[in-house]
Amino acid sequence: MDNKLTIYNTLSKKKEIFEPLNPPHVGMYVCGPTVYGDPHLGHARPAIAFDLVFRYLQHLDYKVRYVRNITDVGHLENDADEGEDKIAKKARLEELEPMEVVQYYTNSYHAAMQALNVLNPSIEPNASGHIIEQMTMIRKILKSGYAYESAGSIYFDVEKYNETNPYGILSGRKVEDLIATTRELDGQGEKKNSFDFALWKKAAPEHIMRWPSEWSDGFPGWHMECSAMGTRYLGEQFDIHGGGMDLLFPHHESEIAQSVAANGKMPVRYWMHNNMITINGQKMGKSLGNAVSLEEFFTGEHPLLTHAYSPMTIRFFIMQAHYRSTLDFSNEALQAAEKGYRRMMAAMEVLEKLEANGKPGESVKINWLKDKCYEAMNDDFNSPVLIAHLFDGVKTINSIKDGKLKIDKENLIALKELFMIFGNDILGLKSEGEAAGGQDDLSSKLIETLLDLRRESKLNKDFNTADKIRDQLTAMGVTLKDTKEGTEWSL
Amino acid sequence: MDNKLTIYNTLSKKKEIFEPLNPPHVGMYVCGPTVYGDPHLGHARPAIAFDLVFRYLQHLDYKVRYVRNITDVGHLENDADEGEDKIAKKARLEELEPMEVVQYYTNSYHAAMQALNVLNPSIEPNASGHIIEQMTMIRKILKSGYAYESAGSIYFDVEKYNETNPYGILSGRKVEDLIATTRELDGQGEKKNSFDFALWKKAAPEHIMRWPSEWSDGFPGWHMECSAMGTRYLGEQFDIHGGGMDLLFPHHESEIAQSVAANGKMPVRYWMHNNMITINGQKMGKSLGNAVSLEEFFTGEHPLLTHAYSPMTIRFFIMQAHYRSTLDFSNEALQAAEKGYRRMMAAMEVLEKLEANGKPGESVKINWLKDKCYEAMNDDFNSPVLIAHLFDGVKTINSIKDGKLKIDKENLIALKELFMIFGNDILGLKSEGEAAGGQDDLSSKLIETLLDLRRESKLNKDFNTADKIRDQLTAMGVTLKDTKEGTEWSL
Repeated sequence: MDNKLTIYNTLSKKKEIFEPLNPPHVGMYVCGPTVYGDPHLGHARPAIAFDLVFRYLQHLDYKVRYVRNITDVGHLENDADEGEDKIAKKARLEELEPMEVVQYYTNSYHAAMQALNVLNPSIEPNASGHIIEQMTMIRKILKSGYAYESAGSIYFDVEKYNETNPYGILSGRKVEDLIATTRELDGQGEKKNSFDFALWKKAAPEHIMRWPSEWSDGFPGWHMECSAMGTRYLGEQFDIHGGGMDLLFPHHESEIAQSVAANGKMPVRYWMHNNMITINGQKMGKSLGNAVSLEEFFTGEHPLLTHAYSPMTIRFFIMQAHYRSTLDFSNEALQAAEKGYRRMMAAMEVLEKLEANGKPGESVKINWLKDKCYEAMNDDFNSPVLIAHLFDGVKTINSIKDGKLKIDKENLIALKELFMIFGNDILGLKSEGEAAGGQDDLSSKLIETLLDLRRESKLNKDFNTADKIRDQLTAMGVTLKDTKEGTEWSL
Repeated sequence: MDNKLTIYNTLSKKKEIFEPLNPPHVGMYVCGPTVYGDPHLGHARPAIAFDLVFRYLQHLDYKVRYVRNITDVGHLENDADEGEDKIAKKARLEELEPMEVVQYYTNSYHAAMQALNVLNPSIEPNASGHIIEQMTMIRKILKSGYAYESAGSIYFDVEKYNETNPYGILSGRKVEDLIATTRELDGQGEKKNSFDFALWKKAAPEHIMRWPSEWSDGFPGWHMECSAMGTRYLGEQFDIHGGGMDLLFPHHESEIAQSVAANGKMPVRYWMHNNMITINGQKMGKSLGNAVSLEEFFTGEHPLLTHAYSPMTIRFFIMQAHYRSTLDFSNEALQAAEKGYRRMMAAMEVLEKLEANGKPGESVKINWLKDKCYEAMNDDFNSPVLIAHLFDGVKTINSIKDGKLKIDKENLIALKELFMIFGNDILGLKSEGEAAGGQDDLSSKLIETLLDLRRESKLNKDFNTADKIRDQLTAMGVTLKDTKEGTEWSL
């Protein structure tokens, strides 16, 4: 294989050959979920996009340390109506405890990720567990002169930083423009400029999550956690930083500024951003009523969904688009993905039992397909092209099965290896039975056996038995659909 | 129900009526795993023992905040052979990262707990994520005069504390005895007395996990985390603190001393300790070669095991002993538990389909059994007695099935409720299918349907079909056994 892995770098706005700082090690940081709500599609897309990156880098024999954080320093507040006094008098156990909320949604997130066959990252640090690291970094930034204290809070001085370092290097925004449009709007607030961002916020009385510091009882600004945890676990400079495109500005832009101000170095070599998800062409949002949780997809219990979509269908659907393309969820598109996924899995099952049926001279060749698959992945993790190539493989498998194509032993091994590597290991596809919530292999086989018996009963004009089988399957939640090709079933 | 929940309190060494500090709230803290190795029986026992407590308290309508910590501030060190210089020159990614080890074993622990049907605690805090809380508490103890600094470390002054507060109140140890036996042994070490314990340890150069403090770059002493996290999430005084008996001294004894020194109050009302596990009568230990991991139990892959034991068998086995009794694991005992578990589950399945077969006057009565079950649980969570009562229920179920006993509607509802409450909700039993690795409900129903068809085929003398069904089931790993009562199957 001659061609090398290239990655589209948001920083340079072009594809670059991937060269890690300390091969064979690769350090990768991806912005994880804020755990104050049910996991939804906006969580699934980056998780799956960077799972693909993680899996492919590991396949290329890199030793990847993959850090995906949990944002748990939220803004949960005590009920303001109660007043501070009343809250202070409450027993500890009667108070709202944000970490209980955090635990609940972290567990939901993990369950959803497991169902989607997303591998666990190497480290999954919590923001609340790294306050010391964040305070240490804030002190460094203060010392380097790029931050100022105001009323117990610490703010990053964007204008000053921009004098020597380009703030906007990632997003392309210009501070001059920001100044022009916002200066006159600034009142007598705490900040010098409205676009300055908090490194440390003094906590209002009703704010529950707070830690003592030399500046105030407060909490770190949102951008701090990723800078501090990235540095702690991957070093002052590391290879890949990923996240959704919505995080590009101000979050990632500010991360760069913080790291340069604290450590004097650009923190990240390759910035990667997955594009956004729309639903029926609309932006996703709670206020728009179209924020479908993953659980709702898996169960089908949402007015926008015509039926349930299994975790593997969601995974396949997300990977059928390149991570830098927008992706529109609709029932039609999901049903197409479901069919595609099933077609591929069916072929992979056929492949397992396939035996060589030809001699070397007459055999179909597989190596070119393998090269094509690597080419696709090396081209900035182009999963839709990879999937298209694998569907060429599916055609080959079915043609061999039907006796229309010959394959020899060596090429059969290569074909099996190809699907093992790209289907199972890299795309992370598995049969629904193994995924949570789907039917398992045993059930599928049992259902097929019952359908066989039903077909035979019909042939023998024993309609009583045929109807009984249908009725009992229906009672178990197995829906049958008779087609020309035979009987299809679904759960 | 007149009788009240009583708990054996290690502090008073007697059973006491349980009266929470702030009903209906209950605060419970249990010492969780140290995540530097595979989860084993020593992890399963406290987790299941306090899962039972958690489940029962919730059943009694208490609002339980259950905190179970993860001890991750370990003692992983860089390879001393390499020397400090060489380590310092290593890139961050080439260094051993303790949190990667922590993540790995935390994930294994969670997977094992899920398989054992142990409910998630309300909050699962990491020691490394609560360094600030621990430092704050150390400062309080220093201020109150019960700790001293020595060479960058902070030690708890046990002798001074004991002048006004009994150190040994939990374990029954006497400081006077400790002094008599250890004073002459003390050399010119950092500590005043060898039984003084560290609140903060200055880190040796090779120690990886370290945080800055006013005393030194170091890490908190082991006992600190539970005191600090218990206080943070449950308050300065809370209801229940649990853990293994091996933690009673010095860990829990020191927790009490720390809390009294910092907050001036006894931290916990009810101290609960589960007893230890032996294997074939021997203490469990890596050096003895009998430390069987939970994974090894589930797969049967360990020289000491004659076959695999399912998670539910392990759970049932642990609950067949009272939590304060020692428990000896042997293949014989586990196989007995397996049988008992299966017998109970089979009866619970029969119960589901059972219909009333008698009038009120002639019906068996169920309420006395329910009372007995509550009595057992109220008697310090006596699960073996509870299980014995449920086996009385099993006999009743089987007698009703065989037509030897009559039951009316009302009592049938009570019987079903009894098993739902005590079998499913409190003991946390579920069919193996729902547990990892077993057959699920759908498969069971499908198999039953196929067996029905086979029976009918035989009646119709269609032996071809009957044999075909048997062969296909056998090919799927379903073993059939024809008995007088019908066909039994197993996977």
